Amino acid sequence: MASLMRLITFITDFGVQDWYVACMKGVILGLAPTVRLVDITHEIPPGDLPAGALALAAAYRHFPRRTIHVVVVDPGVGSARAALVVQTDDYCFVGPDNGVLSLALAGEHIQAIHRLERPQWFHQPVSATFHGRDVFAPVAAHLSRGVPAAEFGPAQRDFIRLDWPPVKIKGDILIGELVYFDRFGNGITNIPGQQLEARIPASVDIATRHGRRRAPLVPFFQAVPRGYTLAMIGSSGFLEIAVNGGSARQKLALRRGDRVRVRRSDP
Amino acid sequence: MASLMRLITFITDFGVQDWYVACMKGVILGLAPTVRLVDITHEIPPGDLPAGALALAAAYRHFPRRTIHVVVVDPGVGSARAALVVQTDDYCFVGPDNGVLSLALAGEHIQAIHRLERPQWFHQPVSATFHGRDVFAPVAAHLSRGVPAAEFGPAQRDFIRLDWPPVKIKGDILIGELVYFDRFGNGITNIPGQQLEARIPASVDIATRHGRRRAPLVPFFQAVPRGYTLAMIGSSGFLEIAVNGGSARQKLALRRGDRVRVRRSDP
Amino acid sequence: MASLMRLITFITDFGVQDWYVACMKGVILGLAPTVRLVDITHEIPPGDLPAGALALAAAYRHFPRRTIHVVVVDPGVGSARAALVVQTDDYCFVGPDNGVLSLALAGEHIQAIHRLERPQWFHQPVSATFHGRDVFAPVAAHLSRGVPAAEFGPAQRDFIRLDWPPVKIKGDILIGELVYFDRFGNGITNIPGQQLEARIPASVDIATRHGRRRAPLVPFFQAVPRGYTLAMIGSSGFLEIAVNGGSARQKLALRRGDRVRVRRSDP
Repeated sequence: MASLMRLITFITDFGVQDWYVACMKGVILGLAPTVRLVDITHEIPPGDLPAGALALAAAYRHFPRRTIHVVVVDPGVGSARAALVVQTDDYCFVGPDNGVLSLALAGEHIQAIHRLERPQWFHQPVSATFHGRDVFAPVAAHLSRGVPAAEFGPAQRDFIRLDWPPVKIKGDILIGELVYFDRFGNGITNIPGQQLEARIPASVDIATRHGRRRAPLVPFFQAVPRGYTLAMIGSSGFLEIAVNGGSARQKLALRRGDRVRVRRSDP
Repeated sequence: MASLMRLITFITDFGVQDWYVACMKGVILGLAPTVRLVDITHEIPPGDLPAGALALAAAYRHFPRRTIHVVVVDPGVGSARAALVVQTDDYCFVGPDNGVLSLALAGEHIQAIHRLERPQWFHQPVSATFHGRDVFAPVAAHLSRGVPAAEFGPAQRDFIRLDWPPVKIKGDILIGELVYFDRFGNGITNIPGQQLEARIPASVDIATRHGRRRAPLVPFFQAVPRGYTLAMIGSSGFLEIAVNGGSARQKLALRRGDRVRVRRSDP
Repeated sequence: MASLMRLITFITDFGVQDWYVACMKGVILGLAPTVRLVDITHEIPPGDLPAGALALAAAYRHFPRRTIHVVVVDPGVGSARAALVVQTDDYCFVGPDNGVLSLALAGEHIQAIHRLERPQWFHQPVSATFHGRDVFAPVAAHLSRGVPAAEFGPAQRDFIRLDWPPVKIKGDILIGELVYFDRFGNGITNIPGQQLEARIPASVDIATRHGRRRAPLVPFFQAVPRGYTLAMIGSSGFLEIAVNGGSARQKLALRRGDRVRVRRSDP
């Protein structure tokens, strides 16, 4: 019953129309019948590593210690990319070594990184196209039962970083960009909220293909009238562009990569 | 282990592409590791209080006694709207005081209503935009562990009612309207099935922008030929407009708010 | 606690926007509070028996022995179609007798087939339109608690087969067709992988309304350059048509029913 309280979470680009996620869960529950399973999302656009990395970074810390986070956004499945288990002080991460784990790992103290290379822990036969079911799922199940990370393969010193756009600083101005749109049409940037707190009050410039817009940095939606554009530090911890009661993505015709500049206002 | 058999259900407008629902679940499982979680739906259109209220009213009674139902359709998050826990004889309801709980509560015997105002029960720091994670989720977790509703804040006498269209009665005619369309294109009205049983056999008039249609009130789809329009008392307990083997919404170009009139047929 | 380790899975065409799936789960958890629930998919297109049958056939075997698989793709609900429980050596299947179980059952050793006809096991009152909630869900719950299949109604010798296209063999050529498209746009055929292994190396002809395409049969996506068409034995065990890094469905304008021919290549 060691696994009674262990949690496994999932982030994939498998969608929910097909049976792929269920196959992973079936394999896990055959090996670890009492582990608890939580879907973070399966709606990462196919192969979209930044979206997968952001979902993991935004969600993983809200789970209890010892949770095992499995991420299968894996456009290189079947190629030579490595598969990893990363043990940190508080969590375990399982997924391909393609950068999708790297945003979350940037906030963690890493204890060990091991490649998944010992087939005795895999679901046999291992298909060439579905390592979610055949490699990542069974490894997560065995981890939940207490198998140490070192059992799955040789240690590795480092992991691949995502090609994540850096935030630039020019004097009193921070320059970032839009990296994700959520269901509500809020545009999430790569600018961490901590970098902004000393700059409030501030205003934000957004450069779209249709021109520039300026918005105030405020603490919540209702600080501007309904239908107005605002910027705020969102629940994920990053600067977001939003419209009170509407979709910033639609209203401003935002696209991923649009530049966002924050400048300190006169106080 | 007091929470082993406790259930928490979720109705939100968060969708499933993002990590918002998972953050709520992570927070809950950190506080109440053995509680069981069931999604009712996360696909309420953003801010659509009638759709959220109907989903709750249609689903809540099918869950075991002592289930805790959490509803986060909360366009006023961050404003002055109250957050509530409502204890009834059989269930516990947690959500904003904006009417989204009111259709379900109309069928319940209420024991107590308390505002969620004591921050020691919240997830800290409380964000201005995500009370699902920071207020409603932790309160539901504590409730599942036996914390009484009165611990979360002061009692309140009443709750806000949804602006739900009333059913009108003119002689032998009931007049209601379409309030929701389900996945199959069935149009659900605000007319409760109990009000119809004495009127059967009956026929139903539907007034759309394209004119009037008449349909028989029948007990199931196959009572009319394939492709024909019918009315029936649906599984949610309300009068529905449907097409056997098709989508009434598409075939009749129905819209929310279209009028529906039921009159007794010649027997 | 007999049901502690029992699993119930779900395949339906109910979608996830409405409360229908949750009502099934609520009914089950009221009867069997410790059973575990796993969604396979609720996104079967309404009434699409081949898609439901394929999802079950592709997924069911990955679950532990004694799992109860519930399938509710039931366009004939309310008509005279029978409802079944099928006990095989390893699993239990619950659903309408309309062919949706038949692809999976073709791979199972059947012990008993019983019709669901004893109302004492149903959720009362049984609606005419929602046997998922009122018949299939409570029967699955009782099965998970150890009620034998024979308790639910009279034995039946056989079950209805799906109208599934047969694979034709002409000399050295296998002729099948596209039966399903997954989220990634991979086109799954009705040709089982076992029938192909002796034919490798092979090439595959796909006949679409826009003409013929030829693709090599390879073991994984990266065996062809990015953007190229390939055929492979997919994770579901059937021959699939795919594009490395893209959607075969879109690129080749594939449709269900398009013919696929496999011929042995010169080695």
